[in-house]
Amino acid sequence: MSDQDTITKVNAAEKAALELAQTSNETRSDGLRAIADGILDRSEEILAANEEDVEEAKAMLEAGEYSQALVDRLKLDETKLQSIAEMVRSVAEQDDPLGKTMTARELDEELELYKVAVPIGVIGSVFESRPDALVQIAALSLKSGNAAILKGGSEALESNRVLHEIIADVTGDIADGWVQLIEAHEEVDMVLEMDEAIDLLMPRGSTEFVRYIQDNTKIPVLGHTEGVCHVYVDEAADIDMGTDIAFDAKVQYPAVCNAVETLLVHEDVAEAYLRKIANRYDAADVEMRGDAPTREIIDVNEASTADWDTEYGDLVISIKVVSSVQNAIDHVNTHGSKHTESIVTEDADAASAFMQQIDASSVFHNASTRFADGFRYGLGAEVGISTGKIHARGPVGLKGLTTSKYYLEGDGQLVASYAGDDALPFTHEEFEAEWEAGTLSLD
Amino acid sequence: MSDQDTITKVNAAEKAALELAQTSNETRSDGLRAIADGILDRSEEILAANEEDVEEAKAMLEAGEYSQALVDRLKLDETKLQSIAEMVRSVAEQDDPLGKTMTARELDEELELYKVAVPIGVIGSVFESRPDALVQIAALSLKSGNAAILKGGSEALESNRVLHEIIADVTGDIADGWVQLIEAHEEVDMVLEMDEAIDLLMPRGSTEFVRYIQDNTKIPVLGHTEGVCHVYVDEAADIDMGTDIAFDAKVQYPAVCNAVETLLVHEDVAEAYLRKIANRYDAADVEMRGDAPTREIIDVNEASTADWDTEYGDLVISIKVVSSVQNAIDHVNTHGSKHTESIVTEDADAASAFMQQIDASSVFHNASTRFADGFRYGLGAEVGISTGKIHARGPVGLKGLTTSKYYLEGDGQLVASYAGDDALPFTHEEFEAEWEAGTLSLD
Repeated sequence: MSDQDTITKVNAAEKAALELAQTSNETRSDGLRAIADGILDRSEEILAANEEDVEEAKAMLEAGEYSQALVDRLKLDETKLQSIAEMVRSVAEQDDPLGKTMTARELDEELELYKVAVPIGVIGSVFESRPDALVQIAALSLKSGNAAILKGGSEALESNRVLHEIIADVTGDIADGWVQLIEAHEEVDMVLEMDEAIDLLMPRGSTEFVRYIQDNTKIPVLGHTEGVCHVYVDEAADIDMGTDIAFDAKVQYPAVCNAVETLLVHEDVAEAYLRKIANRYDAADVEMRGDAPTREIIDVNEASTADWDTEYGDLVISIKVVSSVQNAIDHVNTHGSKHTESIVTEDADAASAFMQQIDASSVFHNASTRFADGFRYGLGAEVGISTGKIHARGPVGLKGLTTSKYYLEGDGQLVASYAGDDALPFTHEEFEAEWEAGTLSLD
Repeated sequence: MSDQDTITKVNAAEKAALELAQTSNETRSDGLRAIADGILDRSEEILAANEEDVEEAKAMLEAGEYSQALVDRLKLDETKLQSIAEMVRSVAEQDDPLGKTMTARELDEELELYKVAVPIGVIGSVFESRPDALVQIAALSLKSGNAAILKGGSEALESNRVLHEIIADVTGDIADGWVQLIEAHEEVDMVLEMDEAIDLLMPRGSTEFVRYIQDNTKIPVLGHTEGVCHVYVDEAADIDMGTDIAFDAKVQYPAVCNAVETLLVHEDVAEAYLRKIANRYDAADVEMRGDAPTREIIDVNEASTADWDTEYGDLVISIKVVSSVQNAIDHVNTHGSKHTESIVTEDADAASAFMQQIDASSVFHNASTRFADGFRYGLGAEVGISTGKIHARGPVGLKGLTTSKYYLEGDGQLVASYAGDDALPFTHEEFEAEWEAGTLSLD
């Protein structure tokens, strides 16, 4: 794979992005339905390619290079292909994220400004392991009118090749070249440098992986690295609710970024609460690491200072006793990763202080941190979760793949008329209207 | 100025940002009115400091280092201070950009999700020359609840010091340390590296200057480099309107980024149009550089290939004859800087094609490119113009200084209840409500 090949791919995507921006929702959704059909029609081909990947991965597993979990995630079968096709169809059914007029404002008579949702352009997505990620990202990109440059994990090489070929085949007539697959690491490094051509990068993978991307490109990056989330059990907490929430937030799926890593407990309820939650955690084999006050109440390992900044992604939790809600807030603002934070309390003032004063993309009151997710939030399919504050924050849906464009419809107006001593005034009146191509206000 | 001093300043801003996020619109607006009063009360002090800067600049002018225009922009007087104070008061009067609930959605009974506008946090702004820029950026930051780290041009050193001191003095009780001034270049380089503490950078200045910032930081940057804007006079154009617009777009204020740099003319109207516009441009001392077909009609200099990518920022324009609207679109998408593009035509289809197919932050029909501006767009004061596609695009108002935060109000809900075989369904119903601190739905 030469540098020139990569440039050719990116240029093709750039060109296709301009075409894709002109397509109707119907065309894009029909394309998605064709992808779903294509995946089912060519399932044998996909499964044969996937079998090659799985065989290779099993050899790596025996060599101690890969985990069983990775091999499991990699494997496709008819049922999984059915659910992938269903996911693509559900993206097709979503509301068109494009073309909506966000504001319409009269600047002066016959001078009308419209702010309209449009695609971003060319999106680069680099992701690890599961081949269904490729289909999901391609589907979301197509629905939102964006060209996509995809780089999957090397362990899914053959599966990704076939899936990409099917997607490109059945949608080529919409905008040839809109979806590009890159494979080599050198291609990724090349893509990271093409900040003139690529508008947004969405890496999905480990903290180290996302950080590598962030550190090596000038292209804006949407995503998250750590998820160091907290549950704070207040002095006015319902103790049973606090126990259930802390259990759910840690145990229901410990490997994900919205799982809790540190439990903060108010000193006035620490005695009663810690014994309860320790019983539950013990029964689920959760390793607890506590500060000194915690260890006076329950017999757990000692937490080191590093524990307060650690995302375990596993059945491990650190526990700290605090003396006030303010104390909890300060701890979270110091050690949190601005992802998702939850307070359990029946005191509205404490909840309000915690939720407002903590700087995080999601703050919860009496709910498990695990709710921080695009599907649960009702955003439809999820592009990812952003812990940055720019463009999109928290779980990101199709809207995160759009930007805006200003359309100004005039009648020959000049700025000179609105400047100087006899300047005309602007009216600046908002009105309700959708900008539509071809319905321009020409007399 | 040691590195430690810079770190101390940035840390103070980070701490103040958390406090500022909790303030009411009234508090922030009162702070702005206090700034306006402070500037007028201490005008003698400001003008004395400014006089020092101006004397220094005059010496540099004589040494051939500075231009007269720079010296003029630098100079403050009572009238200018009055208008600066007025600008600050007008920012105070604007609608609160914070606290608005953008969506409220029931996920299930007693599980309500709110997406609310909040400040970004710490904003760094590096700008050149005029001391009123410092006041404007500080005012917009305060109104939007953001801490600000400001670096002005060295030529305005003394003026900026006094202005910063006044602002910090009269608003210190709102959130001590929210506005920080840095001065040395080494401090800027230090700030560019503090991507953990600073959330957004807004450089204002020359193309080289903005590019330097973009190339040397991992912090998201909002702004623009070049403005290579076009006016396309279509075959169906009103020739007089096309002449007026091209004249206004070039001559009314040639130094700014939304001035036109290249004029595209359809071949069928080139003969009639070019003679008209050349007369107007000649009378205004505009240097014209044309391609071969242009030079067959009017006697102008030859345009080189570099001209099509050049922002003159001066009374110079390049002119090209095209054979179709598609030809014009392709030229703009190849050479434009995605800033502002305008078509002059009475043909709705041509307008629609041009506006939709061109990838730019603003596309105009029968209006001068000079309208691309936050004040003219009705956004109130302008933070800057962004030609990037992420976060904010085109003229950016106070809204560009905000982000969102999700608040989830529950009653002890667990994700385990919404997963697996007996999963509860989500309702995902949007409703109209504002999330308000302290009015939580506790029974």
